Amino acid sequence: MPADSTQLVAAEERDREILFESLTQRSKHEDFIRRAVDLLVERVVFGRASRDAKVVEWATPDEIKNIIDLKPRQTPVSHEQLLCYMADIARYSVNTAHPYFVNQLFSSVDPYGLIGQWLTDALNPSVYTFEVAPVFTLMEEEILCEMRRIIGWSDGEGDGIFCPGGSIANGYAISCARYHQYPEVKSKGVYVIPQLVIFTSELAHYSTRKLASFMGIGSDNCVDVKTDTLGKIDVTDLEKKINEAYEKGATPFMVTATSGTTVFGAFDPLVAISSLCKKYGLWLHVDAAWGGGALMSRKHKHLLNGIELADSVTWNPHKLLAAPQQCSTFLTKHKNVLSEGHSSNAKYLFQKDKFYDTSYDTGDKHIQCGRRADVLKFWFMWKAKGSAGFEKHIDKLFDNANYFRDHINQREGFRLVLEKPECTNVMFWYVPRCLRGCENEPDYNERLHKVAPKIKERMIKEGCMMVTYQPQGNLVNFFRIVFQNSALSHRDMVYFADKFERLGSDIIV
Amino acid sequence: MPADSTQLVAAEERDREILFESLTQRSKHEDFIRRAVDLLVERVVFGRASRDAKVVEWATPDEIKNIIDLKPRQTPVSHEQLLCYMADIARYSVNTAHPYFVNQLFSSVDPYGLIGQWLTDALNPSVYTFEVAPVFTLMEEEILCEMRRIIGWSDGEGDGIFCPGGSIANGYAISCARYHQYPEVKSKGVYVIPQLVIFTSELAHYSTRKLASFMGIGSDNCVDVKTDTLGKIDVTDLEKKINEAYEKGATPFMVTATSGTTVFGAFDPLVAISSLCKKYGLWLHVDAAWGGGALMSRKHKHLLNGIELADSVTWNPHKLLAAPQQCSTFLTKHKNVLSEGHSSNAKYLFQKDKFYDTSYDTGDKHIQCGRRADVLKFWFMWKAKGSAGFEKHIDKLFDNANYFRDHINQREGFRLVLEKPECTNVMFWYVPRCLRGCENEPDYNERLHKVAPKIKERMIKEGCMMVTYQPQGNLVNFFRIVFQNSALSHRDMVYFADKFERLGSDIIV
Repeated sequence: MPADSTQLVAAEERDREILFESLTQRSKHEDFIRRAVDLLVERVVFGRASRDAKVVEWATPDEIKNIIDLKPRQTPVSHEQLLCYMADIARYSVNTAHPYFVNQLFSSVDPYGLIGQWLTDALNPSVYTFEVAPVFTLMEEEILCEMRRIIGWSDGEGDGIFCPGGSIANGYAISCARYHQYPEVKSKGVYVIPQLVIFTSELAHYSTRKLASFMGIGSDNCVDVKTDTLGKIDVTDLEKKINEAYEKGATPFMVTATSGTTVFGAFDPLVAISSLCKKYGLWLHVDAAWGGGALMSRKHKHLLNGIELADSVTWNPHKLLAAPQQCSTFLTKHKNVLSEGHSSNAKYLFQKDKFYDTSYDTGDKHIQCGRRADVLKFWFMWKAKGSAGFEKHIDKLFDNANYFRDHINQREGFRLVLEKPECTNVMFWYVPRCLRGCENEPDYNERLHKVAPKIKERMIKEGCMMVTYQPQGNLVNFFRIVFQNSALSHRDMVYFADKFERLGSDIIV
Repeated sequence: MPADSTQLVAAEERDREILFESLTQRSKHEDFIRRAVDLLVERVVFGRASRDAKVVEWATPDEIKNIIDLKPRQTPVSHEQLLCYMADIARYSVNTAHPYFVNQLFSSVDPYGLIGQWLTDALNPSVYTFEVAPVFTLMEEEILCEMRRIIGWSDGEGDGIFCPGGSIANGYAISCARYHQYPEVKSKGVYVIPQLVIFTSELAHYSTRKLASFMGIGSDNCVDVKTDTLGKIDVTDLEKKINEAYEKGATPFMVTATSGTTVFGAFDPLVAISSLCKKYGLWLHVDAAWGGGALMSRKHKHLLNGIELADSVTWNPHKLLAAPQQCSTFLTKHKNVLSEGHSSNAKYLFQKDKFYDTSYDTGDKHIQCGRRADVLKFWFMWKAKGSAGFEKHIDKLFDNANYFRDHINQREGFRLVLEKPECTNVMFWYVPRCLRGCENEPDYNERLHKVAPKIKERMIKEGCMMVTYQPQGNLVNFFRIVFQNSALSHRDMVYFADKFERLGSDIIV
């Protein structure tokens, strides 16, 4: 029966009004989108990557709140006002695209990555089934497969997922390791299995401990292993800690090694750690969130020797490979552990009577349901540069880091924390004139500790660069420049050193 | 000491080359970005939202792999090739912006949301400290604060975060509930606390069970509570299940109620559930990922009566409020539980000796470290529409759902699953001619079950709309249209019904 005609006429009348409104709306929207895109391209993208721009336009929280009316309101604002907001938000946001933003383990805005991200946004997908995200699903599989090949696992071996950040990837590692050894944990919980212990370096990223808490294992059951002077795991101490755990009646089940620690950029000795894992039957996870990108370079991949022995790997292309935020992967050598360990077979989403091969519906191996497509931006960069381009990028980063290290090593006022850092992190103290020659005085370290926050304040208020500092263990506050943007040149290395000198030499502590 | 001058000259020579290259690169990039943006705006954004476009251009996995060379390669491709890839990716991706994509709990591409997202991408932030993400940090606080106010908590009460999807938000709820009652779990793990049990409706989203597994509680300790004919929690059964758990020696600790279930759109009776939670000392979490948006409407917010009694709420603006993927929030009435339950005080990131008020460094309450800024797109939509605009949007969705329900209720071949669904989900069977009048035959249900997959196949291959189907409990495969795009009109409601008739009436099962 066709729809009742009176009803349809009424509907048509109502709709004529609505259609008219949406046509008007549409041309209003078109005009706004064009103006907004213009602002985005000219002022934000092209206007901010240049060395002349400021890295940060410092304002206090209250100042920002005064400039931008951040509160949501009852009534709409005009398109003009929206464009002003865009300009202000850009102005007071840190310019992470700037060559002199070297503050975190991410930076720069890669043009191909950005276009890939914008295309993703325009397509607004959620990646759980082939039906809803056909291209993205296949693309994820291809990229994850190639990444596993680069790690050194055999073709077709293993599985992988994109996930929201390296921390959650490290959580997947715990989940897979636990499920692999004790599949009953999925339904019964940890109540029916022994008290599990994870081992990780004292300099490992905090996420392993944080996720161990979140996952019911408890941070105390994440045991710190000592590191050597380069920040690498001390394998003798690892074995000692494993035995101590057994003696206490606990059950060691995994080691999370790091390839590229957050602060020092140290690479743990994977071959030796793997031997211990084999000896004691432990899952070896490698957190290569930061250092993984070095696998793309024939010259530097030796840093991760033995990574093919791992059971699983975290690797964030948004770090060393400079993909936009976020692009994180979890990869495992074991084919079924992700899906068996996490699937719940929801019938409303993963229908098995669909007309296509539902093995392409890969969403059930995630703990997320709806999920952003973080693959396209990285895929697009890879297509635009080729693996060869990534290799050149990585080699340039290491070259810059070496150049910077050598340069400050011979300049007055700079003291390296590590003579030969392994990754592209360069750690140093800047020693102001008032402290030079005072190295043997009892309060030297206490005074030196106060230098970095003062330089940082001047640096940010001036907006000339952004470099982070931190203490570590017995080491008082030191700076850490992180090279992850291959648009930097040797000249920029000299710029950084000059700026430290200008900002810091007269500091009194 | 200034840099050694010979060294600088050498550096300058090298750099001249590099600078020259990057200027060339830059103009190459500029040209590419402009062409890519043009393609994005004209073909993807404006070209796909129209009713004339196809919702999906169906291709099999092998066909897509043949059309798009998905494998990453050693060498780069040309800009022309990249533009072709963009067009092909858009062509074979499901057109979630299309008015007739009503397959999931998300759809449409809001123009303001899109621009907000594009601006976010261009600024490429990671939200953990005020230092690195000043505007985004403050913006998150304002939006989360307003959302808590709308829920009905007092000004300044509670805390909240943006997180990657409702599943993980529901995981935060478990974590907060557990930590709130047993703070020792953070360091000691679940080994030192009783066997915990969570209660949730048998029709609740699978994420509570999935996250319970991930978090070491185990899916068996997530107990299903019966639902009534509308799909709402049966409070008598809830109390029975709580008592059964105590009798078994387990420890009930939380109830996850749902405001807007995934399939039926049912709203659990929060006031009654809250009374039980008070009686037994349980944490009440409300998963309002889907239905939360109704709080913006004076006409429909009664569906969530009692939500202010909850300890925590999941609310995804990317669902009913149509923000782009992803925009999910976890909100809690308890001020300190998120930060105390999840902080790890990493010194390399959350330095306490910074020169500004570090209480603005909010990243440590997350289990993520680096984190995308999902706030701006939603904030931007809110500014563009005002709360008043969101209210109009919600009212339109409910109006469409009611119109569609009434329309198919009087059309031959349609059978409603629920006479009066509560949310904007409308569930129905389409009964082909061959099955009409056969309701009393023994194989009727078995045959009816086969109809939906067949219609779905035709629908997707034709590309005229996308509507999902699923079985539920004893109910064989039925369709579910989800209204979440307020650009739809009553005429579109008739379109859907007409299409079902055309695709399905002659199906033989």
